[in-house]
Amino acid sequence: MAGRAEAAFEIPVEEVTALVRTASELALEWFRRPLLIENKAGGGDAALGLFDPVTAADRAVEDTLRAALLERFPRHQVYGEERGRTGAPDAAGVYRWVIDPIDGTRAFVTGQPLWGTLLGLQCGDEVLGGWLHQPTSGHTYVAAGDTAVLHEGHRTVPLATSGRTSPDQAVLLCTHPDMFVGAESEAFERVRRSVRMTRFGGDCLNYGFLATGYADLVIEAQLQPYDIIPLIPLVERAGGIITDRDGRRPLAGGWAIAAASPELHQAALELLNG
Amino acid sequence: MAGRAEAAFEIPVEEVTALVRTASELALEWFRRPLLIENKAGGGDAALGLFDPVTAADRAVEDTLRAALLERFPRHQVYGEERGRTGAPDAAGVYRWVIDPIDGTRAFVTGQPLWGTLLGLQCGDEVLGGWLHQPTSGHTYVAAGDTAVLHEGHRTVPLATSGRTSPDQAVLLCTHPDMFVGAESEAFERVRRSVRMTRFGGDCLNYGFLATGYADLVIEAQLQPYDIIPLIPLVERAGGIITDRDGRRPLAGGWAIAAASPELHQAALELLNG
Repeated sequence: MAGRAEAAFEIPVEEVTALVRTASELALEWFRRPLLIENKAGGGDAALGLFDPVTAADRAVEDTLRAALLERFPRHQVYGEERGRTGAPDAAGVYRWVIDPIDGTRAFVTGQPLWGTLLGLQCGDEVLGGWLHQPTSGHTYVAAGDTAVLHEGHRTVPLATSGRTSPDQAVLLCTHPDMFVGAESEAFERVRRSVRMTRFGGDCLNYGFLATGYADLVIEAQLQPYDIIPLIPLVERAGGIITDRDGRRPLAGGWAIAAASPELHQAALELLNG
Repeated sequence: MAGRAEAAFEIPVEEVTALVRTASELALEWFRRPLLIENKAGGGDAALGLFDPVTAADRAVEDTLRAALLERFPRHQVYGEERGRTGAPDAAGVYRWVIDPIDGTRAFVTGQPLWGTLLGLQCGDEVLGGWLHQPTSGHTYVAAGDTAVLHEGHRTVPLATSGRTSPDQAVLLCTHPDMFVGAESEAFERVRRSVRMTRFGGDCLNYGFLATGYADLVIEAQLQPYDIIPLIPLVERAGGIITDRDGRRPLAGGWAIAAASPELHQAALELLNG
């Protein structure tokens, strides 16, 4: 899939991995420390999306990673959650680094170690690389070039889904049931009633748990592009399938249905859309 | 509250803390490793409580901790999730150690670091000590004797809730919405609609997040005594309040409503019972 693009640009995987880790670990200065939580949306409303804590940590990580990427790859674009885009949006044939400095800000502010720094490399409709680093555990998921592994401290394991095919054996993960509203909730509930176990929470790590065989399905909605683009290569290179509700790659955010096997993905889509 | 009992028995807090850590860390041999999951309840049903994964890790932790406690305190009783009780149930004036070897088995089997080993020391209606150790982070919450702290790796912080009093400023944690059924769900939803943010997941760590000011409310149901007894001292010694839905200490399990302040606890109870 990535052959054409890689011919033009070989990703220096280890170098980029080091940049992600260095930037991500800056967040530890603010994790489980007293901090001022800003409210981007301005209101105190409890509805999802209106309480959107943004911390100094977010900006420190993104600014550091942006600067490092633009210095190393001056012809590339960068698109980050906090600081937006450089260059023209979606210019053809352009490499774009997609940054979510802290995915899981709710986990972050409640002291839970289920947040991470995401980096993706996109070129048109292709996502050539994905990184997820969780600095409290030191776990780094990498799917780029010839690499598709989890660096888990003292050991490195290849990314591989469970391969499970049947919903009634599947473990389903989802960050929060409020991601779904109205008929969407009913659709999600159809899947939830069909699986063996559901667990909420997890944020970006859910896709890592899927890519290492600890869960079989992740279903989420209301995602931003930077929430999900970096995770696409992790799922795909592990042997999984990830699409939106219409069966397309979720490059624009919105829904993500990630599954350990094509059969399970198909079953989940049918339950959602049935 | 514990004056009478402590006159009769001074808890060797550091020694017990070391026993908890040593036993708990045995679980790491099975965490994020291929494992066989037994199904205690026998069925494959997706309903909460029927998929109850029990691993060799559970038994290794409990057996080690039981043996160490009974050797050190031969006149005391032990009550654990996996191996049941020693001695007569609820004999008056008897010290009983309450063990949950791995609270959060669902987190454990899905690779999430939100599980822990719980130990409580009960004497009649009093809970004289509580311990929670999470071995992947190395965090140990201790509330016993003169000690009420979180050992967080390189630093030790005193247990103290946020002190928040108003639901509309509160962060609510709960392991899973399926803990509530029917009218219970409606009661929980009344609280959920009143708070600033809700996050699911977390298991025993939720009470630790409350006791260190990262969350303000924890509301759960369908708890077993060993799920909650060890956590009572953590909440109380941090300045929080924890009761069942009737305002009593949740010594028998069931509901737990834990709050950062008496005012917030009262508001939560009124929302639940209104």
